[in-house]
Amino acid sequence: MKVETLRWFNNRLEMVDQRILPAAFEYLSYYTAASVAEGIRSMVVRGAPAIGVAAAYGVALEALRLSQLLPPCRGKVGMGVESLSLDTSTPSLTLPLHGGGDSSVDFKTGMEAGFTVLAASRPTAVNLFWALQRMRKVWEGVATQSPQEIAQRLLAEAHEILAEDIRINKTMGAHGAALLKDGARVLTHCNAGALATAGWGTALGVFRSAVEAGKKISVIADETRPFLQGARLTAWEMVQENIPVTLITDNMAGYMMAQGEVDAVVVGTDRVAANGDVANKIGTYMVAVLAKRHNIPFYVACPLSTIDLSIASGKDIPIEERSADEVKGFRDTHWAAEGVKIRNPSFDVTPAELVTGLITERGVVLQPDVQSIRKLMADVASS
Amino acid sequence: MKVETLRWFNNRLEMVDQRILPAAFEYLSYYTAASVAEGIRSMVVRGAPAIGVAAAYGVALEALRLSQLLPPCRGKVGMGVESLSLDTSTPSLTLPLHGGGDSSVDFKTGMEAGFTVLAASRPTAVNLFWALQRMRKVWEGVATQSPQEIAQRLLAEAHEILAEDIRINKTMGAHGAALLKDGARVLTHCNAGALATAGWGTALGVFRSAVEAGKKISVIADETRPFLQGARLTAWEMVQENIPVTLITDNMAGYMMAQGEVDAVVVGTDRVAANGDVANKIGTYMVAVLAKRHNIPFYVACPLSTIDLSIASGKDIPIEERSADEVKGFRDTHWAAEGVKIRNPSFDVTPAELVTGLITERGVVLQPDVQSIRKLMADVASS
Repeated sequence: MKVETLRWFNNRLEMVDQRILPAAFEYLSYYTAASVAEGIRSMVVRGAPAIGVAAAYGVALEALRLSQLLPPCRGKVGMGVESLSLDTSTPSLTLPLHGGGDSSVDFKTGMEAGFTVLAASRPTAVNLFWALQRMRKVWEGVATQSPQEIAQRLLAEAHEILAEDIRINKTMGAHGAALLKDGARVLTHCNAGALATAGWGTALGVFRSAVEAGKKISVIADETRPFLQGARLTAWEMVQENIPVTLITDNMAGYMMAQGEVDAVVVGTDRVAANGDVANKIGTYMVAVLAKRHNIPFYVACPLSTIDLSIASGKDIPIEERSADEVKGFRDTHWAAEGVKIRNPSFDVTPAELVTGLITERGVVLQPDVQSIRKLMADVASS
Repeated sequence: MKVETLRWFNNRLEMVDQRILPAAFEYLSYYTAASVAEGIRSMVVRGAPAIGVAAAYGVALEALRLSQLLPPCRGKVGMGVESLSLDTSTPSLTLPLHGGGDSSVDFKTGMEAGFTVLAASRPTAVNLFWALQRMRKVWEGVATQSPQEIAQRLLAEAHEILAEDIRINKTMGAHGAALLKDGARVLTHCNAGALATAGWGTALGVFRSAVEAGKKISVIADETRPFLQGARLTAWEMVQENIPVTLITDNMAGYMMAQGEVDAVVVGTDRVAANGDVANKIGTYMVAVLAKRHNIPFYVACPLSTIDLSIASGKDIPIEERSADEVKGFRDTHWAAEGVKIRNPSFDVTPAELVTGLITERGVVLQPDVQSIRKLMADVASS
């Protein structure tokens, strides 16, 4: 089964609702920047590269809508979102809908509002800001054209970002697969899979590429509380692909390593700082510390769009703190004692010294640091 | 609220059903060794010291029943257990009930069967075997007396083990409290509280004693997947006591330490080997490795009954692997993808080198090793 995490269908963006996987596989439809932003915030779509692609489509949708190339939306914005009582503590992001074909709407003002609501959806993954920046440049390049022409150009760019993401993942996968020996038992945290991207995946893309290259590998998936991306999404993707996968709770990773049952770790990332520090799903740091103790290589699958040279080190990466409800239980089931305070940082930072290698579409950067990352990005810029 | 985890009431053992806390606080009644064993296996009662006390009562109950000092049980064995669909993959442990006042039952054979079923209930906590050994010695000391007299003596011993457990916890608590500075933010894993003992607690007993001594402390509780002892039991106990408590998922411990929000770690233990290696709830090892990296003291609250000199090092401690159902979700809610393999080791081993100190009722053993533990136990034996 080929997973299309996001797809353009019938003049709308459709995204797999990742909150209800694996119990159900359903697409939700999106017509506006505000609804896409809400889809990102509420984690219908998650994973840094997928968030970037979704944001690009959010910009394109807003342009199409403002230029009246889309029919006005009739109560279908964020379709299906209302029926789920997930993470409702943060107020929904809303934009005036300008609906009903009101031609007086100022295109530029509307577009700026669209960019703003998308940028406010989630703070940690840099791909969101990277994609918005890229879409803005395209817009600026055709700013003198008609809204309709601008909208078509932005939609074409969103399609290109999606296609590029899959190409990059496959190239990255091939580089990463070369690092895994035949028979390797590889631990991963969270879901850096097809569902975290436009398809194929970053960390799970490495596993897919290894299998495609004829290697037998098996995967150990941390369940990844509180949102359970490992138990629900990574396990599901690997089962679909017939790649052997074993699920553990997050606190079992050390035991598995101590037992000699882990040969390598591969994870994704939401943002890499200029010095090689890696922000990724909460718990990644713990896995990296344990891997170091057990001399197990710790790799980070990292498309270049995830490297943020504007941030010197990991301590400057903004870490999102999400709703306490996520930690109290799962979905509508709450098990935590009443009256307890709750923390819910969604990401942590793994210092570069714990990273064996960054796997990029331009090859593997071993022991990343300021110099090696600067050189990589300079090579890319000059090629 | 004073928590009586186990109590003798109306000629039966009552135990708080810890599987349904904190949603409900209910006692279940036990009349036989087999039903107590089932209560231990299914985690109605858990925590090494509490398991020891329960096992002692299990032996006493069996003696009372076999000597016909208890009315025969009428379908009330394991009362309430059947109505919960928890962890049903392991067949129930059952003993022939010899019911209805059949006087032909051989007391000695019946008692041996009782010891056997109790010893098979859970493998890791040494307190279980320690309590059975102690009860056996008492039995041997009065073996020539009538079954009725033996039963009364065994019941008195079970009462003494319960009372002793609380006294020991309070002494241990005072020793441990002296290690915590005023204002300390202390992380704990799992539940080593009143609910894991006859009352007061080991790790949480240290916190209670610190507060009783006038120190302001706050607790950070790992939720402790898969059984969620931290979220359900530790958080609940601390809220009852008005001790400030913050709940995190297990994978957030490293983040909290990196942020400088943890001053000390105190955990309980299920068995300490002769060299100071510590078996405790799965995930403890991970916390210890992180504490070491961040130079945070890592203390283990450890009654002497938990030290097992017959085991040279942690690698010889048997680690229970429990049902996959526990990891698939929680109670009846399953979220894991279908078809995934699952591991569920219930404990891990923290090497002695990571332990800053063992807190015992005879004082604190800093940097425990073979010599210091041997000396401690020799001092105890000679006093």
